[in-house]
Amino acid sequence: MTSAELAADIVKWLQKRQWKVATAESCTGGLVARYLTGVPGASDVFDYGIISYANRIKIQELGVSPETLAAFGAVSEQTAREMARGVREKAQSQFGVSTTGIAGPGGGTAEKPVGTVYIAVSDENGETIRRLELGDKGGREEIREAAAEKLLLLLWNRAAEKERT
Amino acid sequence: MTSAELAADIVKWLQKRQWKVATAESCTGGLVARYLTGVPGASDVFDYGIISYANRIKIQELGVSPETLAAFGAVSEQTAREMARGVREKAQSQFGVSTTGIAGPGGGTAEKPVGTVYIAVSDENGETIRRLELGDKGGREEIREAAAEKLLLLLWNRAAEKERT
Repeated sequence: MTSAELAADIVKWLQKRQWKVATAESCTGGLVARYLTGVPGASDVFDYGIISYANRIKIQELGVSPETLAAFGAVSEQTAREMARGVREKAQSQFGVSTTGIAGPGGGTAEKPVGTVYIAVSDENGETIRRLELGDKGGREEIREAAAEKLLLLLWNRAAEKERT
Repeated sequence: MTSAELAADIVKWLQKRQWKVATAESCTGGLVARYLTGVPGASDVFDYGIISYANRIKIQELGVSPETLAAFGAVSEQTAREMARGVREKAQSQFGVSTTGIAGPGGGTAEKPVGTVYIAVSDENGETIRRLELGDKGGREEIREAAAEKLLLLLWNRAAEKERT
């Protein structure tokens, strides 16, 4: 499934439940929100998204802890978790999702090379986080697109889990 | 010029001046931020973007006045102005940009048919606002893409004006 198809299924499913999702994006820079709001009727399920590029914004707007950023960095499981939870709580929506990573071409390190992206989905039961290693061959746009797609898939799987319970 | 090319020129120009831009998007749902952050090095010039779909979010996060929304509606010159100024002030950036419109397929009226979009650029000298009539032939995605492109062009023209002064 393409990101646009995933987004359409997610919006339809949320509409049925009268639930909402909010987005907090760093490396994907608005791509996830763009896919979700590309679906007609998205305004039923989407109120708020943020592109929190600067650490200052992650702290001020999403309540990410300065200690988390200092100890683990902006590109970390912990930051992804706090972003997703923070945006969900701020928007008062059922789901919050987040991305934080290194889209390149600069900014990579041995431990976190270009293409390292953390994605998270938050709901009332907690957060699910994945570390992606997307490599640097495809370049910045390919990394961003792949991260957005994986996040939409993670959200869709979480929705499917809920459907079963 | 394509939107990606415009974004690249804008980011380069802002880098040179050590200036920043913040985005407040309604109908474009993250597309403008996506183009700007698609440029390598965008983090030098971009800290914060918001997708303020719900009126509640426009009020809470951007300081749009409830009276403005009640009197003129979310899709109006006045709301676009307050969104662009609000996001600029919140991000403490030199430029703020905004979009608010009807991407369809639903939501059109006689006075504001599908394809009506207001775009705004704000800087210390005030706001420039344009009303776009993009029609409904191309559909939702085409309207959103065209609005994002026109906004990037408006920002680029404002930059060029500053270059001359």
